[in-house]
Amino acid sequence: MNLNIIPVKWTEEGVAMLDQRLLPTEETWLMLKSYTEVAAGIKDMVVRGAPAIGVSAAYGMALGAKQFVGTNVDDLEEELEYIGDVLAATRPTAVNLFWAIDRMKQTFKTAKAAGKSVSEIKQILVDDSKAIHDEDIESQRLIAKFGGELIEDNSTVLTHCNAGALATGGVWGTALGVIRGAVDAGKHISVIADETRPYLQGARLTAWELMQDDIPVTLITDNMSGHVMKKGRVQAVVVGSDRIAANGDVANKIGTYMVAVLAHRHGIPFYVAAPLSTVDLNCPTGEEIPIEERDIREVTHVKNIQLAPDDATVSNYGFDVTPNDLVTAIITEKGVARAPYTESLKKQFEQ
Amino acid sequence: MNLNIIPVKWTEEGVAMLDQRLLPTEETWLMLKSYTEVAAGIKDMVVRGAPAIGVSAAYGMALGAKQFVGTNVDDLEEELEYIGDVLAATRPTAVNLFWAIDRMKQTFKTAKAAGKSVSEIKQILVDDSKAIHDEDIESQRLIAKFGGELIEDNSTVLTHCNAGALATGGVWGTALGVIRGAVDAGKHISVIADETRPYLQGARLTAWELMQDDIPVTLITDNMSGHVMKKGRVQAVVVGSDRIAANGDVANKIGTYMVAVLAHRHGIPFYVAAPLSTVDLNCPTGEEIPIEERDIREVTHVKNIQLAPDDATVSNYGFDVTPNDLVTAIITEKGVARAPYTESLKKQFEQ
Repeated sequence: MNLNIIPVKWTEEGVAMLDQRLLPTEETWLMLKSYTEVAAGIKDMVVRGAPAIGVSAAYGMALGAKQFVGTNVDDLEEELEYIGDVLAATRPTAVNLFWAIDRMKQTFKTAKAAGKSVSEIKQILVDDSKAIHDEDIESQRLIAKFGGELIEDNSTVLTHCNAGALATGGVWGTALGVIRGAVDAGKHISVIADETRPYLQGARLTAWELMQDDIPVTLITDNMSGHVMKKGRVQAVVVGSDRIAANGDVANKIGTYMVAVLAHRHGIPFYVAAPLSTVDLNCPTGEEIPIEERDIREVTHVKNIQLAPDDATVSNYGFDVTPNDLVTAIITEKGVARAPYTESLKKQFEQ
Repeated sequence: MNLNIIPVKWTEEGVAMLDQRLLPTEETWLMLKSYTEVAAGIKDMVVRGAPAIGVSAAYGMALGAKQFVGTNVDDLEEELEYIGDVLAATRPTAVNLFWAIDRMKQTFKTAKAAGKSVSEIKQILVDDSKAIHDEDIESQRLIAKFGGELIEDNSTVLTHCNAGALATGGVWGTALGVIRGAVDAGKHISVIADETRPYLQGARLTAWELMQDDIPVTLITDNMSGHVMKKGRVQAVVVGSDRIAANGDVANKIGTYMVAVLAHRHGIPFYVAAPLSTVDLNCPTGEEIPIEERDIREVTHVKNIQLAPDDATVSNYGFDVTPNDLVTAIITEKGVARAPYTESLKKQFEQ
């Protein structure tokens, strides 16, 4: 393993992002020089994945603050509120986005209360956005360690979408972190990656990312996951999450629910790997999690190739909710939570 | 409804096929002027769908016989054996292919036993291939009638792949025949069509075909089927089949098993519509049905657009098997068979 994929970076010029829309055929970095460019980068999916969106939003807040012209702390506060609103309007489902914006606002408030100047606060916000990034990577390292222990030697692990280094601050990833953790512990692991229509994160990103780290990966279409489970090819399923409700219901990329139902039928453990910043204790159940519906062109076209008739009616749900009874365990940086999740997740926050 | 889609036609020049690879953006007909061209048309998926493959193979046998140069009946018999082998080697899963080849051979044998000449036998084979086509359309009309009665008014029906007029001799279709039968009976029906990766028969063919007949259809990616069922948007599932074992296990397009498991979880009836020529009493269970594995380029590319990394390892199963306990009923031209299928299917053959 190389463990060297970091998809978002703070630089003196702005926020650098690996353009994930062009993978796997092109590795291109974009330099985003304002918070509006960062917001557009999140909305247009230059970067995606809940933890990566959180880190990017923190950097967007820091960049916006850094570029604030003025010396009045109250004006900066107003500006930060506005920047937060712009960033929050990019994607509705990933709770890490709102978590990161709130944390940066809280950091501002603490600094303001301590009587810091505008220029001091700018530096504090830049430092805190970097800290959010560092903490995210450290969370993943722990998720990899705890999760890796759950995966048996010589297993094949099925994963859906990309919950890898690319979907986070980098290095380990969440679901792919668990796989890397098992490999790091000396186990022989191979992976089956669902391609994950319509955006093909599995084909484009997960296959690419695992090949970078020399972890054996076989790509399938989403509708093959039942068949490979029936053939006995899968020993565990690991996925990431965009938001986990207080009761352990899990919102994740569309199709995750289907995989969970099939894993349940075949007695295959279904693990969810996510940092605690993905757990939304204000959301009692999955019913309250907003599900993004996206541009239907993602379904009707691949680049300029038309797949469906002109004027076809299309639904394009970005996410679904897997109920907690299908979830074997939730792996966070605090350890392994099991049902009943209302208690086990709450306990992790109190640790 | 227009009920005017017939994808394969016998003509004096050869076998005309609507090139389904180009739908929905182009409607192009190919004229196949030899049995080898017909075999290539089946193999390359100019035509696809088990009943349509059966009709095409019958026409291939008739065309090969028609072009036989000679007057010796034994030589024609040898030639027909060879033609049958070439046609049989095109696709392994659809049993209708082998059924049609066998029936044409049987028709030859009966004509030979009756002392017919080569030129008489040529005409008999052409007539029988047309009869197979007519019988196929009549079977679908009956499937539409029997199946249409099972679908409740104001239902939304989910279907996977294309088991429509395009997949058969034409007009009604099998799964889409059931939907057309319900519409024909005055019911208000809308359809959700899985796009059906990797070959996109749902996006390209089912959506197109239903739009031709003004039946409301919403296209989704395969991995959205669980989510739309969970939201209560689906009242019934209807699919076709490529081969049904004697015990009612159903081989159909990859992903069908997944849809069946999800329908079961949500208490949604799961119907299979197919002519009796799809039922293989020589196959005791689904375990014995060969599953075609296809070119991995279908998964890694859409036309010239590369979706996955260079040298990615890929599995590309064309079909899967749905066990009989997930099948609510099997609708054939003889009526509605229910569990235990070993008895009910056998009884239909004896009717």
